[in-house]
Formats: sequence, C-alpha cells, structure tokens
Amino acid sequence: MSSFGDTRINELSKVSLKEPVLIQGLPGLGYVGKVAVDFFIEKLRPRKFAELYSSYLLFPDGNLGINISEDGTYSLPRYEFYAYGEQDPHVIFLTGDAQPSVTGQYEVASMVLDFVQGLGAKGVFTMGGYGTRSSGDVGSVYAVVGESLLGDKLRKLGAKMAHGGAITGAAGVILGIGRQRGMRCAGLLGATAGVYPDLEAARAVIQMLTGLVGIPLELKDLDKEVEDMRKKMEKLRPSEPGEAKEGEEKLSDEDKGRYIT
Amino acid sequence: MSSFGDTRINELSKVSLKEPVLIQGLPGLGYVGKVAVDFFIEKLRPRKFAELYSSYLLFPDGNLGINISEDGTYSLPRYEFYAYGEQDPHVIFLTGDAQPSVTGQYEVASMVLDFVQGLGAKGVFTMGGYGTRSSGDVGSVYAVVGESLLGDKLRKLGAKMAHGGAITGAAGVILGIGRQRGMRCAGLLGATAGVYPDLEAARAVIQMLTGLVGIPLELKDLDKEVEDMRKKMEKLRPSEPGEAKEGEEKLSDEDKGRYIT
Amino acid sequence: MSSFGDTRINELSKVSLKEPVLIQGLPGLGYVGKVAVDFFIEKLRPRKFAELYSSYLLFPDGNLGINISEDGTYSLPRYEFYAYGEQDPHVIFLTGDAQPSVTGQYEVASMVLDFVQGLGAKGVFTMGGYGTRSSGDVGSVYAVVGESLLGDKLRKLGAKMAHGGAITGAAGVILGIGRQRGMRCAGLLGATAGVYPDLEAARAVIQMLTGLVGIPLELKDLDKEVEDMRKKMEKLRPSEPGEAKEGEEKLSDEDKGRYIT
Amino acid sequence: MSSFGDTRINELSKVSLKEPVLIQGLPGLGYVGKVAVDFFIEKLRPRKFAELYSSYLLFPDGNLGINISEDGTYSLPRYEFYAYGEQDPHVIFLTGDAQPSVTGQYEVASMVLDFVQGLGAKGVFTMGGYGTRSSGDVGSVYAVVGESLLGDKLRKLGAKMAHGGAITGAAGVILGIGRQRGMRCAGLLGATAGVYPDLEAARAVIQMLTGLVGIPLELKDLDKEVEDMRKKMEKLRPSEPGEAKEGEEKLSDEDKGRYIT
Repeated sequence: MSSFGDTRINELSKVSLKEPVLIQGLPGLGYVGKVAVDFFIEKLRPRKFAELYSSYLLFPDGNLGINISEDGTYSLPRYEFYAYGEQDPHVIFLTGDAQPSVTGQYEVASMVLDFVQGLGAKGVFTMGGYGTRSSGDVGSVYAVVGESLLGDKLRKLGAKMAHGGAITGAAGVILGIGRQRGMRCAGLLGATAGVYPDLEAARAVIQMLTGLVGIPLELKDLDKEVEDMRKKMEKLRPSEPGEAKEGEEKLSDEDKGRYIT
Repeated sequence: MSSFGDTRINELSKVSLKEPVLIQGLPGLGYVGKVAVDFFIEKLRPRKFAELYSSYLLFPDGNLGINISEDGTYSLPRYEFYAYGEQDPHVIFLTGDAQPSVTGQYEVASMVLDFVQGLGAKGVFTMGGYGTRSSGDVGSVYAVVGESLLGDKLRKLGAKMAHGGAITGAAGVILGIGRQRGMRCAGLLGATAGVYPDLEAARAVIQMLTGLVGIPLELKDLDKEVEDMRKKMEKLRPSEPGEAKEGEEKLSDEDKGRYIT
Repeated sequence: MSSFGDTRINELSKVSLKEPVLIQGLPGLGYVGKVAVDFFIEKLRPRKFAELYSSYLLFPDGNLGINISEDGTYSLPRYEFYAYGEQDPHVIFLTGDAQPSVTGQYEVASMVLDFVQGLGAKGVFTMGGYGTRSSGDVGSVYAVVGESLLGDKLRKLGAKMAHGGAITGAAGVILGIGRQRGMRCAGLLGATAGVYPDLEAARAVIQMLTGLVGIPLELKDLDKEVEDMRKKMEKLRPSEPGEAKEGEEKLSDEDKGRYIT
Repeated sequence: MSSFGDTRINELSKVSLKEPVLIQGLPGLGYVGKVAVDFFIEKLRPRKFAELYSSYLLFPDGNLGINISEDGTYSLPRYEFYAYGEQDPHVIFLTGDAQPSVTGQYEVASMVLDFVQGLGAKGVFTMGGYGTRSSGDVGSVYAVVGESLLGDKLRKLGAKMAHGGAITGAAGVILGIGRQRGMRCAGLLGATAGVYPDLEAARAVIQMLTGLVGIPLELKDLDKEVEDMRKKMEKLRPSEPGEAKEGEEKLSDEDKGRYIT
C-alpha cells in the first residue's frame, strides 16, 4: 500500500506486466470514457489487482459518502485497476465511480502515474466525451496528443485533431502530467451531444483505441455488444443531486446498484 | 490527547471497555441519527469520557463558531464520546452537534476509528435518515452492511436491505473506512419524509439497533419516551442560515440552548 | 517572526507587559467590534508592535489582494497588535481589516493565542455585533462567558446573558479555543439592526468593556467622540463585491483610503 | 526544479541576469496585463527559460485541465518566464494562461518571488486592469507603489495615484509580498470599461511601463502594433464556462488555439 494524504492505493495482488499502457475511462461528459473502459473490461476480462481510495473522490453533487450495491453492501468511491497481460501490448485499465474534486486532481493523477510507472508503464491513453451541439458530429473522435508521431497515426485511423479548446477534469489532467514525465500520451474524445450515457460516442472511441493500441479485441461483436449495452443502459438514469443528506430514495429494482458503477 | 492537523480528541477520563461497539448518531436528514443516539444516552446514562474538536465541524450554514448554552457559556462544535460498560455488550456512544465539512470527512472519521480501535472496538453502527417521498414508508428501516452475516440478522429483525443509492456524510464515510479496516459495520437508516426532527423514524431505528446489538434497554418505556420527546422537540426549530455574521437573534426562552444540541 | 503555513506574525518591536488581556475587534456584523477597538486605539494611543499576515485573510467578497492607502501605497490584509502598558491592567488590542476564511479560522485564532500567551496574556475579550430585528434592542449588550464568575460581573454591569444561539466567525472561534486553553474569556456583542457601521452598538460595547476590564478611559468624552465618529463614518460606504477582478473604481476624495480600514 | 506542494518551477535553461526587474502580466480584468506583457515578449523576443505549473492554476470556470494547441498538442495551465538581458535594465517577463485560485495566490506568488530573487531580482512591476464605468477614463493609468520615490516618478510620467480601493488577484498579491520582502514594487493598472481584451488600456500601460523601467522599446511602432493586435484580437472571444465537463466545442479555424493563450 502506498499512501499520500488521504489518497491511497491498495494492491490486491502483485502483477507482472511488460511495458503496459494505461487506459483510463472515468465518469464525465456522456459517460463516454467510463462506458468505453467498462466495455474493454467486460470483453477482455482482465484481472482486478488494485483499488485507489481518496477523500477527493466525491459524488457528482460534491458530497462524500458510500455507494450501496444490490446486496446491501457498500464501498467508498474508488478507482479500480485491471491488468491485461495475455497478449501484447499489456494494458492496465483504470475505471472508477467518481472523478476527483478540483483540489484533488493533481494529487490523484500523480499517484496513479507513480503507481503505473512503477509497473513499467510508458504510455497513457484517456477516453472521454467532447461536447458538440451538432448531433451529426456524434461518431467523430477528437484527439489530443503529447507528441506529433501519435497524431499522425491517429489521423490515419480517422481521428480529427482537436484545434484549441480545453479538456477539463481527470481525462485532461493525467495527460498533462504524463506528458511532463515524458510518457506517450493521447486523449480520445468522442463527440457527444450530452446523452447520458452516449453509447454511440463510446463505440467510436472504443474502435479508435483498438486501432491505436493494437488490442486484439473481437471487433465483429462490437456492434451487437453496443446494441445490448444500449438497451441495458436505457434503463439507467443517473440520479440528480437532491436534498437528501444521508440517504437517497431506493431506485427501482431494475436500476438497483447501477448508479454510476 | 491525540491530534492531527486541526482535529483532536481530548480524553476526559480513562475507560476500560471489553470489545465495545461504536454507535454513532450525528445531525443529518431528519435528525434521525442524533435523536436516536441521544435517546440511548438519556436512558442508559453512560459516562462522557472524551470530546473531539475539529476545524472541520461547521455549522449547517457552513460557518465556524461557538454554540451558546442556556447559562451564557459556550463551546466549539464537537463530538462527545460516552462509555457504557455496565452490561454486555460494551458500547461507545458518539453524538455531536455538527457534521464535518466534505474536506474533513475522511480525517475526522479516521481519527474516530483510530481512537475507538485503540479502546478495543471491533464494530461500528451508524444511525441516520433515509429520504423517502412516501410518508407510508416512515417507520421502515433500511440497512447497509459490511458483511452478509449482519444482513441476515437485520432482515430477521425486519430491516429492508438498501439496494443501490448512496449514503452521504458522516454516517456513510465511517462505515466505508471501518469496512476497509475489517471492522463489523452496519448502517441503519430510518425512512423519513424530511420532518425535523423525525421522531417516528428515530424510534424505528432505536428499536432495530436494540435488537441488533442486544442492548438491555427497557423497551416498554420507549413509546412514552418518544411521545414525550415529540412534545419537547416540537418546540425545536433549527435556525436558518441568515445574514448575521457574528451573532444570531436570541431564541425564545423555551428554545434556549436547544439549537441542534 | 513565528510562522505556520501561510500565516505569520511579524514583531515590529519587543514589548514587556504584565499579564495583559487581549481585546479583539474585527470587521463583522455592523462593524461593531472593529469600530469599538479602533476607538480604544484612537483614545489610548497604544503602540503598534506586531502584524499578522495570512493567506486566509480575504476581502469580504472572498478574494485575496491588497488594500490601497490614500497615498497610493498598499498592504495585504492584516491584523495589527497594539500594546498598552501605561496603567493596569495591561492590554493588547487586536484590530484588523479582514476576517479569516472559514478554513483559516482555527489556524489564525490559534496563532494569535500562541502569540499573546507568549506575552503573558491570561484573558481574551472579543467585541462584535449581535443581530436583532428590533431596533429598540440596540444599545443592549449580550454576553457569553467562559466561566460563571465573569457572568456575574457582567450582569451587574447591565449586560444580558445570551441564552442559546451561536457566534460565528473570528469573535467566536478565539473564545472557543481560548476557553479550552483555560484562559479567562468573554464575548461582548452589541445588539445591532445591521447598520454599517453601527456606532450606537459600538458605544454600548465600549462602555461595557471599560467597566469589565477596568480600563481608565475618559468616559465623559465618549459621547462626543462617538458623535464625531458618527459624522465621519457617515461618509464611509463599504464597497460591494463587484465584477472587477484586478481593480476597483476610485472612491471619492472623502472616502479615499477608508475602505474597511 | 524547485517544488512546494503541487506548485513547481521547471527551469528550461540557466540564465545570467544583472539585477533584473520582474514584469508580470496575467489574465484578468480586460486582459490588460496579459496583452501588455505579451506585446513586450513579441517585440523584444526574450528567451523563455522557465515554466511554473501548479494545481492552483485553474481555468476561468474554476475547473482544472489542459489547454489544447492548434496542432492538437496540449499543456497544463502554466506561467512562462522570459529573460531579456541584451540591454539594461535586464528584465524577467512573466506571462501565463491562468490565475491561481484564491487558496493558491500566496503560495504561487511566494514561489515566483523566491525564484526571481534567486536570479537577483530587486524590483516587481505588475500590469493589470482598473475597472471604471466612465469610458472617458480609458487610457488613464492608475498606479500603486511600495515606496514614495516610485510614486514621484510615475506621477511625472502621467500616472494617477490610486487613492484607496483594492487590487485583487495575482497582480495585487505579488506586490504585497514583494513589498514585505523589501523589493521595489509598483502596479500599473489601465482604466478599462471591461472590454475583452482592452487594447487601449493595455497600450497605455505599456507606454507607462516603458517610461518607468527604461526599456529601449521602439515606441514609434507601438500604435501600428496595437492596431494590428486590435484587428487580430477582435476575433478572440473568451469561452464561457459551460456544461461540458471533459471537452469544449471546437473553435472556428481563426480562433483555434487562441483561447486565453
């Protein structure tokens, strides 16, 4: 266990990976990044080997607390690290049920990079959403890169380079710090008109990342999977910040335990 | 005295307890947890043995200051620890007149657990409110548990397991950290439609906890006590955050000194 | 110079005092405390011997910056300590042009107490305003005390004991910490309907404190002084938080340099 | 590299300067300071030799993230230090694409001063905007000074001394701390009615600073340059804080990469 302030990483098991790349997807615009990384985890079945807990991982309404599972057990908001080492390239997938607060973004991203660099990681790829007002743009993937070589490769795969603007939140900060540390970095942002979750945007990002990283994922299943997810996810409605301080109303049976996680 | 940052615990006397359980009730939704723990303290007359002070214990309006008593003396917001060791199981009751701010939740909960673990505690039970829009649900107790065994016991006692959702604030955070430390943990949330204070919800939680922990409390007095509390509490109106920076208007004689505490 | 984090005290000269009492007045409700302490400083002409600077001393609009004087020079918001040792009892007057932010209240109050205790102080008296909706109550002084003996003395002097409620901000926090340290503490709050500055409330508090502490102040001049101050102060209009980020519009000649200070 | 908390300065190359003055211009009211310092950098072509990164350098909407350049690369918000040592006086220009948050102002300003004092700096001049409601006042420069000598010089150059009021934000805080350290300090604030960017205000400040510091800048080019900038800048529209969490809509081609930077 490594710790700094109120942020710490619990290793559940030791993993041995060969220069893995970190692929991060966290809750954010259109849940694009989180949906995408969870798809990879569902398909590739990597092994969960570590969790990060932090007093900076807040609920969307800015409060701190515990998430309740379907069986009445619970846990604090956390990041989960999954190791995939069966084929090249090795990958560490990072998913989670919360973003750090503004004051914790640097600390949390720095600890994640310390941790994965300790495991040999030399590349960081984040997935997220890119706000657009034109629904015709959904399906496009905008890319930012830490080095021009990656940009060339992404353009060939059909990505559009982002020209200006900003990426706020965890998907941006870790790229900023990663680049300063000399890591290979790219952010893939699926254009989204703000649907929650935006599966079409997530699908575009998944396809782009598969091409970029060379993950041997069965792509022919992708459309069906996304279609299934779409149906499954249509039932998910993220809860709004309300006035309840200690508890929230029980969700319907079908929604149970699906809040964010 | 142990201290960390601006949070510290003052021990008023040494106590010797045998594997006590911590029972916490703090101001929150419907004041359910606070009313419930104060009832236990009133009935069992445990001995106050420690106080926790913290720069994170703020008033409901987000300001910091002192609470004034009926006799014109005052104190900073604080937690109070009471020891009950006359019969098995031994209990540490934790009451208080404020919740920590979001940034202090981890620190304060961690210090409380450090302290009670140092006294041998292996279990943590929190009481609180559970927002519901249906007044017909008031009287129900929703439970979250750190282990399935506790869930079985609670179901037999009539509790409903919470299926999803979240518990924000002190009632949730200490359960999250307690579970990580391998303690026996459960949260009992009385369904409340938001009445302040919600005595019916508190009464349901008191009864459930009495059954769960096996506290030899005279239950036949409970209804009368709650009825008396109801009358007494009807006079309590929690003050609203106003524009006054240094002082607040004097409360009526009957309300005096009853603000939150 | 002692320092902790971004708060530090600069001693301008060494003072030798005999068990001084600390008398604090800071900007707050009706500017009662600040007006009152500045009156003492104007009349008794104690010597300024220290300044406290802190990143927690913010402007009323929550921003940090510098205050500009009439001659175009400037300074960061600060506390100023004045020593009065010509007659018994010796006094340290504490005035300032800002209150600490909520997160800094504990740190700043603790540093002030460390500092004055190092100079032998055993008593702390704060002055402030007490919000009332009845203008007929203006002129009353409400008191809170750390010990009942002080309460008896204050009642004889005509003060009303506060029965419940709260004192938020610097006037309250330093009393809370001072009492924990075993110092003699009292807070004198002049009832104010919110006039800025409320000279009538300040005058009542000045008179009460003069009686309590036994400061040999020429009371017969008081009414005239207050009347003069009233005229002078009528020109003072505290600036509202606006949109200007770096500068504020020039005040009129008569107002120049009178903002808060 | 020196570091403190989450703020650190990366030196790109060693510079040798003779008692340089620090000239700072950061985003703020009317972008006056930033436009002015960037004009000096464009004309004098000083060498960039250091960057400051900090978790306190937030976007105008209060979020943290990365700024994207025209070529799809990106960086965290930062300060940039440029060294000008070709003629006397030597100068360190400080520009940036963000202001620190309130809680970081002291830390960031202190680190900047530590750094430039280590390079021999004895003077600090900041440029910024000064809110006015009268557009007839635009073109005026208001000055604050740490010592009266500088005030005399500035008055001769046509500056008006600020009489009261306040300077909030980075342009003020560094002057406050610099003065405490005994440095020669002045702030030059161009009156602005709030146009973004206000080139007329920036031009007045540039001219004043050129006279004050004695920088051998080709002044006859100034009007044309400002006119060109005006045309170029007319296309710049600072983005509003929106709902997009991870990405912002692509700016038009002409605007690309011009957001703040």
